[in-house]
Amino acid sequence: MKKAVVLLSGGLDSATVLALAREQGYALYSLSIDYGQRHRIELLQAKKIAQQMGVVEHKIVSIDLRSIGGSALTSSIAVPKDRPEESISTGIPVTYVPARNTIFLSCCLGYAEVIGAFDLFIGANAIDYSGYPDCRPEFLQAFEKLANLATKASVEGAGKFTIHAPLVHLSKAEIIRRGTALGVNYAETISCYDPDLNGLACGHCDSCQLRRKGFTEAGLPDPTRYVGNSTDTH
Amino acid sequence: MKKAVVLLSGGLDSATVLALAREQGYALYSLSIDYGQRHRIELLQAKKIAQQMGVVEHKIVSIDLRSIGGSALTSSIAVPKDRPEESISTGIPVTYVPARNTIFLSCCLGYAEVIGAFDLFIGANAIDYSGYPDCRPEFLQAFEKLANLATKASVEGAGKFTIHAPLVHLSKAEIIRRGTALGVNYAETISCYDPDLNGLACGHCDSCQLRRKGFTEAGLPDPTRYVGNSTDTH
Repeated sequence: MKKAVVLLSGGLDSATVLALAREQGYALYSLSIDYGQRHRIELLQAKKIAQQMGVVEHKIVSIDLRSIGGSALTSSIAVPKDRPEESISTGIPVTYVPARNTIFLSCCLGYAEVIGAFDLFIGANAIDYSGYPDCRPEFLQAFEKLANLATKASVEGAGKFTIHAPLVHLSKAEIIRRGTALGVNYAETISCYDPDLNGLACGHCDSCQLRRKGFTEAGLPDPTRYVGNSTDTH
Repeated sequence: MKKAVVLLSGGLDSATVLALAREQGYALYSLSIDYGQRHRIELLQAKKIAQQMGVVEHKIVSIDLRSIGGSALTSSIAVPKDRPEESISTGIPVTYVPARNTIFLSCCLGYAEVIGAFDLFIGANAIDYSGYPDCRPEFLQAFEKLANLATKASVEGAGKFTIHAPLVHLSKAEIIRRGTALGVNYAETISCYDPDLNGLACGHCDSCQLRRKGFTEAGLPDPTRYVGNSTDTH
């Protein structure tokens, strides 16, 4: 049974990816990164999701990206709220974390090498997303090339690393439909960049807006628990 | 004044690189990684070296690579001692840390992006080294390509990232000669993988052996403080 390392944030996209990797028959090894993120509560959800999906192992690696800062997710910069949809899809917002996916995929690579996996899964998406450069197909291809030069496993010919980004060309609605068909419990996922201490979503950040639009377009009920007690404040 | 991010381990190579970057007129920003390494005392030396070289800022980023393990430097695997020279130069030893330079360079990239630097310096060496795949020129080139796809700075055209590895084709003796000419105080550097609690070098690991050979071939006195009180136990 081939092993897959799945980068699991606790959000909607990566939970779907975990389900897709399971559907493909991989033995699942999920990896979450505690990077000092504002929405650190997602780590608790990631662990729950991993357990529900029957992973072989769920690993959490701590990296203090607050010491670098430069992002609304890792510093005191405010998370933008209620931006018009056209603003979300253009430009790179302050929620961008410098080199995040490069750092995260590098950790996945290290973990994969230790457990003898060659398949890395990431929920990067280049359609309904926040314009982050490290979600684009050309970035992912460059990382795959790097992975196959960087490691003992690749040099010694034990295998070839593949970066799987099965969501990269899907809309948020398509992602939600796929995940729902695979039994993903989206009520357990947290997408919000600025949730309250109980994990209730703000409903107003870019990520909340993209998520809500996804459920609407998918024609499926939005199970997100928003601040203000109802399941959908809008 | 152009800014350089220099990956500084506290060892001989990275201290030399810092001096080379200073010679080239860069404003210096050094970055050390606290990754749970066995020879964690090198971090103290890195800080001293950074201060002596007049860096603008010295940053330490913590990443818990012990949670991944897989290396003699981050787990209970023993560090090999007294290996014959031919063994050191062939094969990849257990001191290899899975994906280490990929992870470290990714952190440098994030830091560089935050401070507006485009020049990253690393002391990778592919001559007198331990056979690590992530020290080879082809790896460094692939990382440079990745960096220019991964970041906001590159996408928005603010500049092009360059990975500088000025030691990659130098022998250890050549590195020591260059650094000595630039005033590097090698007594402050720690290369040993398995020093004692006071930072005295074991004198027997691969890194100690490569270092000692370097001083001998350079025809320069070895200032390393070895366990057993003399400056050179052999």
